[in-house]
Amino acid sequence: MTRTVLESATKTAIIGFDEPFCVIGERINPSGRKALNLQLEQDDFSTVEKDALAQVACGANVLDINSGAVFSGKMAEDPRYADNNFVEPPLMKKLIETVQNLVDVPLCIDSSVPAALEAGLEVCKGRPLVNSVTGEDDRLERVLPLIKKYNVPVVAISNDETGISDDPDVRFEVARKIVQRAADYGIPAHDIVVDPLVMPIGAKPVAGTSVFALIGRLRAELGVNTTCGASNISFAMPHRHGINAAFLSMAIGAGMTSAIMNPVRAVEMEAIRAANLMMNHDPNGGTWIKFGRVLDAVAEGQDFATASAAARASDDSSGRGRRGGGARRRRG
Amino acid sequence: MTRTVLESATKTAIIGFDEPFCVIGERINPSGRKALNLQLEQDDFSTVEKDALAQVACGANVLDINSGAVFSGKMAEDPRYADNNFVEPPLMKKLIETVQNLVDVPLCIDSSVPAALEAGLEVCKGRPLVNSVTGEDDRLERVLPLIKKYNVPVVAISNDETGISDDPDVRFEVARKIVQRAADYGIPAHDIVVDPLVMPIGAKPVAGTSVFALIGRLRAELGVNTTCGASNISFAMPHRHGINAAFLSMAIGAGMTSAIMNPVRAVEMEAIRAANLMMNHDPNGGTWIKFGRVLDAVAEGQDFATASAAARASDDSSGRGRRGGGARRRRG
Repeated sequence: MTRTVLESATKTAIIGFDEPFCVIGERINPSGRKALNLQLEQDDFSTVEKDALAQVACGANVLDINSGAVFSGKMAEDPRYADNNFVEPPLMKKLIETVQNLVDVPLCIDSSVPAALEAGLEVCKGRPLVNSVTGEDDRLERVLPLIKKYNVPVVAISNDETGISDDPDVRFEVARKIVQRAADYGIPAHDIVVDPLVMPIGAKPVAGTSVFALIGRLRAELGVNTTCGASNISFAMPHRHGINAAFLSMAIGAGMTSAIMNPVRAVEMEAIRAANLMMNHDPNGGTWIKFGRVLDAVAEGQDFATASAAARASDDSSGRGRRGGGARRRRG
Repeated sequence: MTRTVLESATKTAIIGFDEPFCVIGERINPSGRKALNLQLEQDDFSTVEKDALAQVACGANVLDINSGAVFSGKMAEDPRYADNNFVEPPLMKKLIETVQNLVDVPLCIDSSVPAALEAGLEVCKGRPLVNSVTGEDDRLERVLPLIKKYNVPVVAISNDETGISDDPDVRFEVARKIVQRAADYGIPAHDIVVDPLVMPIGAKPVAGTSVFALIGRLRAELGVNTTCGASNISFAMPHRHGINAAFLSMAIGAGMTSAIMNPVRAVEMEAIRAANLMMNHDPNGGTWIKFGRVLDAVAEGQDFATASAAARASDDSSGRGRRGGGARRRRG
């Protein structure tokens, strides 16, 4: 039973075959969020703080920190801003310091710039997840030594120099190559979390079935945990939450152990909590029953983040703190 | 790829490995519905008619017809009413005649009284499903000859003289015994739809995982279709629809091909339609996109049955009738 151990300064989260599904909050990411990108350019971290608190309140076990900002306003005065190797490393440090001063969950350091990953590793407390390495040789050679040096786990994305293959067997072989190359560096398989790559079901009708099959093989043959960008599955389709919810439940049934996703969504989080119950990862239904009170508040008109935060505050003040309880249980 | 073919006078429904999930509407069942039971005692079929129309509008592919009424008001004047062998056969005939005069989907004749099954088979048009036979020897000997005589498929429930085993291996062996006994009568495995028995997750934390594993074995080793009473999974738990939705999605992912359930529930039907999309059983997403319009109407305040009926009427009047189209596609 594979376990990938993540830590903050005070708290442990485990991605594992016999653990509740690990929710990695995706919101702290300036790509595709113009307003956030502009704030970061102006050294304003207020949305980052708000998103960190809301995601943890809604049940994120880990927060992804993506530094992929584009500071186009600054490029004119200083052309170095056109280079992400210049922009991202200091931004990653600031993002991590901001977030880890505010919430206690482990982090996931997310950048396509290896120097930003390294900058993040220098300031991140505990044992963060690194996102990501691909099967391209230059990425493997640049990122795996960092993983070894800092003794941290890494997300391995199953594409390589040839791009993203439509053939799940090719994607499996890329994952196998990364696991083998990591082993050459002394990095164990339980510290590799493979992202088998989820395609939009609207464009690829086999997107679901091929990922479910891949998850099973990755788990059985390579013994690795898995993750994905879950909402890709519903890209360009109407009623995305319903598609995401079914996808997440079915992926959990197929053996997927984490996802990078928006936890501030009641429909998806309900599906995950119900799927945990189905998988015997909530054996007395205690988490489901508590979550039901949040759903009750949502039915009465509260928004999900507010209702989740209120439930968490009430839990904490009652002395049966869910955060504390979760951490203790997970360490047991 | 196993296919169990059901027919009404004019329409075919297929339960199959490579087919969209088959929804068997459970509402026409007087057990546990006091008002309906009383109506039937008074020869009033108005609720039956209403339930038949609503279930088909909401997407039931097959309607279950259960005759298990208890006419306690009539027992005093005529003690024969205390015997279900007296009550059910004529009631089953009336129920089937009422429903098949109103809607065109295939039916599932549901009774624990073999004489009621036979009475139903005498009047039912097309090729109904019979619900059910168990692994008890006297039931096998009483029901299987009927199945052979009428050349119809049957639901096989995996319990026997020893009751319902907690051990999934025992439930598998009961299913195997029924399939073998049926073969002795010349009934093929593709006409057996096994119900592996779904326990409440609140009482049995392994209820989900053991059913998912059983579904896989039944499909791979016996080559049979599967069904279940889906809502049992959430018995006595809060927020049952969310649990049912995750269970149905995950069971479909594990290979379950039908369920006896309430189709007049938006949450469960959304999960099934999204799961069909995930399984590549709605390859261009056409069914999902149409269903999205019903969800839009629900979001605007319509109830699900009304919105579903309106969508169906609009479909039919546009000449691209979904019912007609469905029948053609399924026969192809």
